[in-house]
Amino acid sequence: MELVIGTKKWSTWSLRPWLAIKRSGLPFTETLVELRQENNMSEAEIRVHSPSGLVPVLKDGDLVIWDSLAICEYLAEKAPGLWPSDPALRALARSAAAEMHSGFASLRGECPMALESEPHVATLSEATHKNIRRIVEGLGGILARSGGPFLCGDWSIADAFYTPVATRFRTYGVKLTDFGDDGKVGAYCQRLLDTPEFKEWEADAK
Amino acid sequence: MELVIGTKKWSTWSLRPWLAIKRSGLPFTETLVELRQENNMSEAEIRVHSPSGLVPVLKDGDLVIWDSLAICEYLAEKAPGLWPSDPALRALARSAAAEMHSGFASLRGECPMALESEPHVATLSEATHKNIRRIVEGLGGILARSGGPFLCGDWSIADAFYTPVATRFRTYGVKLTDFGDDGKVGAYCQRLLDTPEFKEWEADAK
Repeated sequence: MELVIGTKKWSTWSLRPWLAIKRSGLPFTETLVELRQENNMSEAEIRVHSPSGLVPVLKDGDLVIWDSLAICEYLAEKAPGLWPSDPALRALARSAAAEMHSGFASLRGECPMALESEPHVATLSEATHKNIRRIVEGLGGILARSGGPFLCGDWSIADAFYTPVATRFRTYGVKLTDFGDDGKVGAYCQRLLDTPEFKEWEADAK
Repeated sequence: MELVIGTKKWSTWSLRPWLAIKRSGLPFTETLVELRQENNMSEAEIRVHSPSGLVPVLKDGDLVIWDSLAICEYLAEKAPGLWPSDPALRALARSAAAEMHSGFASLRGECPMALESEPHVATLSEATHKNIRRIVEGLGGILARSGGPFLCGDWSIADAFYTPVATRFRTYGVKLTDFGDDGKVGAYCQRLLDTPEFKEWEADAK
């Protein structure tokens, strides 16, 4: 399998399936397409590797899977343990991952992943504050049920989806205790940044 | 199981899992929360039914699943046939569904689902034109591979995700042949609008 990804310091969409494929232990090659900016990529350059013009894509023979969540589901069918084995926790993991996939537009627009940036305190809009409160509420509820240490116990695809968010909180100086966290969501976010897989990505990005 | 949904003429997010649960044949009850507008819903009213403040939600015992794609995946684990049985087609179905889940913001903002509106020709922005061309390209590629009649052969969750889009194209007078379609994507969209499940939803909405 070949995973085509975008610039590591910016591409949150690429980081998610990359973490999942690293965790899966499945053999893969990595092809990097440099993006000018997350949302201003050179389409022609990408189309050389990805017929749909989108990154990330996973190629497996003649099959091209072009969405980061669909790539993760494909990997989960090939390798055990990428989703929780308990059906209820699996449904919560998918709720959290899919909510991140479709939502939190304000946070994503205002706080782009920028692994090259030094942490600093940013002034954020009320819409972004609302996103952060919702993330704290959603993740806090699942952590209370699972008991941690990762969102649903062992590391899962849901954790891949929240690792970019953890970098945003760090880069833009977001203190989760200001948004209803009793400390557990913050500790969880730190745990995401401490995984060997994320540290490898971060080192590559810098 | 209880599926909590929003106003039927507007809530595209609710339509998707509703179509999937109808197709699944699983027993369920339906709870309707009237939304003022798709993005201006009464949060207090929703929280009575949905602790997260989001609709749709699926309740199964003490489990609350709050994302439409996660709900569909949960149903697919309980009932056979909601995803294609072929792994490659299943990966393409998930790519298409997840791309719709996260993308096409311009089309969604400019052409909200409005089942009460008479079809009319709307002037659309270039960003929306680009969304439509991408949809034609993406769906056309999968239909060519599967041979139809639905996106991946038999009806699947991917079709649930594109049914709201088919209503948008109808309501806002979008001629897909102006966007690269050879007729197959348009015929597919019409097929989505002709399913007995969608016709039932549409009748309820009006």
